[in-house]
Amino acid sequence: MMAGHPVDFPEKPGSLLIKGALTESGPIDICVDEDGFIGAAGPDAGRNFRGEAEYVLDGTGSVALPGLVNTHTHAAMTLLRGYADDMPLQPWLSEKIWPLESHLNGDDVYWGTRLACLEMIRTGTTAFKDMYFFMEDAARAVEAAGLRAVLSYGFIDLGNEQKREQEIRGTERFVRHIKALDNPRIKASVGPHAIYTVSQEGLFWLAEYSKEEGIAIHIHLSETEQEVRDSVKACGMRPPEVLDRCGILTPRTVAAHCCWLDQAECSLLGKRGVSVAYNPVSNMKLAVNRAMPYHWLKEAGVNVSLGTDGCSSNNNLDMFEEMKTGALLQKFYWNSPTLLPASEMLSLATTGGARALRLGSGTITPGNPADLILLDRHAVCNTPLHNITSNVVYSCNGSAVMTVLCQGRVLMMDRYIPGEEEVLQRASAVAEDLVKRAGMR
Amino acid sequence: MMAGHPVDFPEKPGSLLIKGALTESGPIDICVDEDGFIGAAGPDAGRNFRGEAEYVLDGTGSVALPGLVNTHTHAAMTLLRGYADDMPLQPWLSEKIWPLESHLNGDDVYWGTRLACLEMIRTGTTAFKDMYFFMEDAARAVEAAGLRAVLSYGFIDLGNEQKREQEIRGTERFVRHIKALDNPRIKASVGPHAIYTVSQEGLFWLAEYSKEEGIAIHIHLSETEQEVRDSVKACGMRPPEVLDRCGILTPRTVAAHCCWLDQAECSLLGKRGVSVAYNPVSNMKLAVNRAMPYHWLKEAGVNVSLGTDGCSSNNNLDMFEEMKTGALLQKFYWNSPTLLPASEMLSLATTGGARALRLGSGTITPGNPADLILLDRHAVCNTPLHNITSNVVYSCNGSAVMTVLCQGRVLMMDRYIPGEEEVLQRASAVAEDLVKRAGMR
Repeated sequence: MMAGHPVDFPEKPGSLLIKGALTESGPIDICVDEDGFIGAAGPDAGRNFRGEAEYVLDGTGSVALPGLVNTHTHAAMTLLRGYADDMPLQPWLSEKIWPLESHLNGDDVYWGTRLACLEMIRTGTTAFKDMYFFMEDAARAVEAAGLRAVLSYGFIDLGNEQKREQEIRGTERFVRHIKALDNPRIKASVGPHAIYTVSQEGLFWLAEYSKEEGIAIHIHLSETEQEVRDSVKACGMRPPEVLDRCGILTPRTVAAHCCWLDQAECSLLGKRGVSVAYNPVSNMKLAVNRAMPYHWLKEAGVNVSLGTDGCSSNNNLDMFEEMKTGALLQKFYWNSPTLLPASEMLSLATTGGARALRLGSGTITPGNPADLILLDRHAVCNTPLHNITSNVVYSCNGSAVMTVLCQGRVLMMDRYIPGEEEVLQRASAVAEDLVKRAGMR
Repeated sequence: MMAGHPVDFPEKPGSLLIKGALTESGPIDICVDEDGFIGAAGPDAGRNFRGEAEYVLDGTGSVALPGLVNTHTHAAMTLLRGYADDMPLQPWLSEKIWPLESHLNGDDVYWGTRLACLEMIRTGTTAFKDMYFFMEDAARAVEAAGLRAVLSYGFIDLGNEQKREQEIRGTERFVRHIKALDNPRIKASVGPHAIYTVSQEGLFWLAEYSKEEGIAIHIHLSETEQEVRDSVKACGMRPPEVLDRCGILTPRTVAAHCCWLDQAECSLLGKRGVSVAYNPVSNMKLAVNRAMPYHWLKEAGVNVSLGTDGCSSNNNLDMFEEMKTGALLQKFYWNSPTLLPASEMLSLATTGGARALRLGSGTITPGNPADLILLDRHAVCNTPLHNITSNVVYSCNGSAVMTVLCQGRVLMMDRYIPGEEEVLQRASAVAEDLVKRAGMR
């Protein structure tokens, strides 16, 4: 039986029974087996399990949801939170972000990713797709935090052959490393940054390599109008066609942003089985001037998911905030208050994300990994409770999350996360040191 | 000396010293006198005050800000949170909102406003401008909660003379009632709903009456394109011109929304000294299809402030969320990442709001009422702390707020609010009963 905090968390998941948590279809029990999978879920699912469960968790004060899935972020950029805002894109990148990033080391990325994982746990995200540098260190952080992640080595060759060879070796080394970890929660992905930073030779190689290895592809696509214009100017093709010719558009691919797709390109992504990561907060903050065409993607049967992007263009990793902003932006930009209603938005953040990351989870269903979150049913944001899904998407933010499980392991209990203090202190220290080292303060 | 919660809150403010709270200009002490005003504020302001202060509050783990000011809401609509979303405007109003509102009574508005006040305290708002029905009951709720408010009797005559006479008597009765309360935290305002619900005769009377009484005016203005079109069709004038001819545009006026103003209308508002309440979340959710032209209003010297609108079109009262969405929406819609930077946005929510409500507060300065909030400096959203204002606007939400003072009275201490449980229970109950009474469930 678990008590209030401080709690002794089991290092390995024991069998667990969550009793009477509220869902859209009424209160349910959720049984979690000792391998961290959902054994049973339903109104009376706990009846036969009661005697056996090693832990029993009273869920009656809570709303149960599948853990949220963040399909596009650069986790360690938490270190840059608030470092530079409200600037035009080019000076922001060249005068602020890149100079700082050039001084990053593996220790920075470890603590930045730990901070990101802490924030994700606190706000109900149980799985994420990441793209950054020093990804072996990011993997260490994910392992320590207990989350689920698909990690991508950010591949940038800028058309330079020597740099390309380095990136190829770096990608191979990283993928071997992740496979050797043999952690079912951590998978490798290739990460061609974008068409404007990776040569077509690089894209070809990555497509081929990801196919051989059976791993995912993570790329930025048609984020800005500039990207589309430059692509047409450089090679007479818009970005999706370039990627398609290089073999990058596959059912293993997550394409982030996709603000500037036309209707035919949405159909192409549908045909190729690509998943899209919608990043509304980042798109608004960086003034990309067009919202991802959700209605065309939906029409084309594209799997749409949700991502926060990195903290330098957001500036947090709260998927609840992202759900609300994302639903609002569609209505506002495409001029329809009925577009992307709450229930669809919640699907983007759960089942859409699970499908994009090719996880078995995304719903509270027997056989799925127990990636679960419990929200405070009596929080102000859930009062009154006319409609759970509406409150989740439009009223609550991540602070409503009380308890988080990933693969059955309890990562946060009644808002208590073991080791939080150390992560906050170390991440603050490396962030400050990074700015000093870069001579930026 | 105040301890952790549960805390004995002083019914009347005693003198108080907040020690070492962080601000943009470094750590400061804040001395609050026994009448609830700021006596001194600065790096060493507490030195001479230490012996005298009845209460001492350690602020070293916190960031101090002026209390936020919400300049446009319909507080009791918290009862409708999540009741109806994702619908076109007309059926949403006529099939959902109005049928429910027609069953509202004073007890509903009391508990709905108590819930709103609870939410505002929890998320760092210390003053608000409200427009709704049963406003004597709203005043009782504000009094009990300890917040500051300017309350408007929502005036709607629909061009009907008999209804107009009722509304005039209702307005007069309400203003007399509020003046008789003689509570320095609660002021009356007239509340012509909008040009499409109030006759020009009604507008004339309200302008005249508010002038005689020296009280504020609160109105919706140019929220939708439809409103502008209908106005031109009905009387050959756009909405601001109608209001100006009726004497409604004054330095005592707060005009909410203002999405569809043209540049000349922004100048007119500037000349008349009108304050504007920007409501980005509501505008996006209801798909008004144009963002308030902040750059023109700024050019014209208009005082711009920030509001959440009511919970049925938001669906919360978190001004932190509103600040972020508001800054992002300007950048996105007007296509400039430099528009409405964090520091200006924080001004809208503090000094802009204080000016709109004609309060003496809005900054942490001696002589101002001690309307103050303390944020958790060690929250994830404040880690790292490269830039306080950026974290406040772009990273944090209302859950970072730990302690709230209004007129020197402590309304929340370390996230503890006395009586919270009862408000949540009673508000839930009246909301459920309202839906049943209206036969809507």
